[in-house]
Amino acid sequence: MISVLIIGNGNVAHHLEKAFLKAEAIDVIKISSRKLAEITEADITILAVSDDAIAEVSSKIKNSFVVHTSGSFSMEDLKNNTKKGVFYMLQTFSKAKEVDFSKVPFCLEAENKEDAFLLEKLAKAIGKKIYAINSEQRKALHVAAVFVNNFTNHLYKIGNDICKENKVPFEILEPLIDETALKIKTLSPEKAQTGPAIRNDNKTIKNHLDLLNHKQQEIYNMLTKSIKDSVQ
Amino acid sequence: MISVLIIGNGNVAHHLEKAFLKAEAIDVIKISSRKLAEITEADITILAVSDDAIAEVSSKIKNSFVVHTSGSFSMEDLKNNTKKGVFYMLQTFSKAKEVDFSKVPFCLEAENKEDAFLLEKLAKAIGKKIYAINSEQRKALHVAAVFVNNFTNHLYKIGNDICKENKVPFEILEPLIDETALKIKTLSPEKAQTGPAIRNDNKTIKNHLDLLNHKQQEIYNMLTKSIKDSVQ
Repeated sequence: MISVLIIGNGNVAHHLEKAFLKAEAIDVIKISSRKLAEITEADITILAVSDDAIAEVSSKIKNSFVVHTSGSFSMEDLKNNTKKGVFYMLQTFSKAKEVDFSKVPFCLEAENKEDAFLLEKLAKAIGKKIYAINSEQRKALHVAAVFVNNFTNHLYKIGNDICKENKVPFEILEPLIDETALKIKTLSPEKAQTGPAIRNDNKTIKNHLDLLNHKQQEIYNMLTKSIKDSVQ
Repeated sequence: MISVLIIGNGNVAHHLEKAFLKAEAIDVIKISSRKLAEITEADITILAVSDDAIAEVSSKIKNSFVVHTSGSFSMEDLKNNTKKGVFYMLQTFSKAKEVDFSKVPFCLEAENKEDAFLLEKLAKAIGKKIYAINSEQRKALHVAAVFVNNFTNHLYKIGNDICKENKVPFEILEPLIDETALKIKTLSPEKAQTGPAIRNDNKTIKNHLDLLNHKQQEIYNMLTKSIKDSVQ
């Protein structure tokens, strides 16, 4: 049995507690970060608070092993005087939507092998995809995630804007969006690249630019140039 | 029974022929665009050639009803003196991969209602998602597709580059990529937007920029600015 104390009130804390409650080998308690006076010891204390609160909250914790769940903060940003680690799940969580933890990648970091093994055991109680990722690698992953998630979603938004302006249902693009995401599971993104930029089809590029507003043109031009440069 | 003549040797011609051969109500023949002398009349003649060949090849066809399959060319780019139309499938086709036509959006255009009805009948013989889309709308769709497919794939490539540089397996990002594509089926891309740009989290943005090379920074800055501007 692994005892777990989750500190936090957000989506990550909520979904983690729910998952651990279902796992037989885990004994879980969740408390708000405003009730640190009521803290009890646990094998693993998971700090699922906002990034900005990590240093302050961790500095007040005396528990033996404290981990945070942030993608952009390093293990050393924890300010407890005991052992440290990271239990980062690379996925977007929203309160309303059920999380399938079997598909969530767990990126784990600890100060020694024993702690790493304990974190792995905890992750395996609810998940399947488990990786040892150090703080530098995790920061890189977090930036890469901004490109493939936040920025990609913004490109969807621009696609939606263009559809709206021309009274075309955005749903027509959904199968293509699915296929684009699916393709890179069997092909590297470099080899999966198609379109006028990689073909150097400047006539089509010009036609496209004529249909866009100034801001859309800027993005179109920059990404077209970047695709062209990537094959030189 | 609808008789169909497909002209072309590419992926679209290949997959269309295969699908029509399985459809009971369709009688299909496929020929190369270099054998136009051997052409026979059909209810619908589908020109599945490269965009640049549309004008020249269509000018040599005397068949009664000729359609092209291009997303970026208008119906009027056909130069046959008979009836014209467009039979555009918005999906990427590769020779090696089987196409599930039930998921492919068919964007149809014709000069009159009768022809539109015939194209619809043809599309329904192999597909399910059928839309009446005029030439202007189709051009807009084609540009929107560049954003959600070509440019999105390039963002995956940049994500992959960042992973490689930091010796992190790119597969860690795959569930997030899937979730990003899935999310917009229930939420508009505008509402689905997350990340440091929309939160105006300039500290995280600065940390991210420090990890990127100059070209990556340019793209990061432009898309971050575009996301910030989109909520003002």
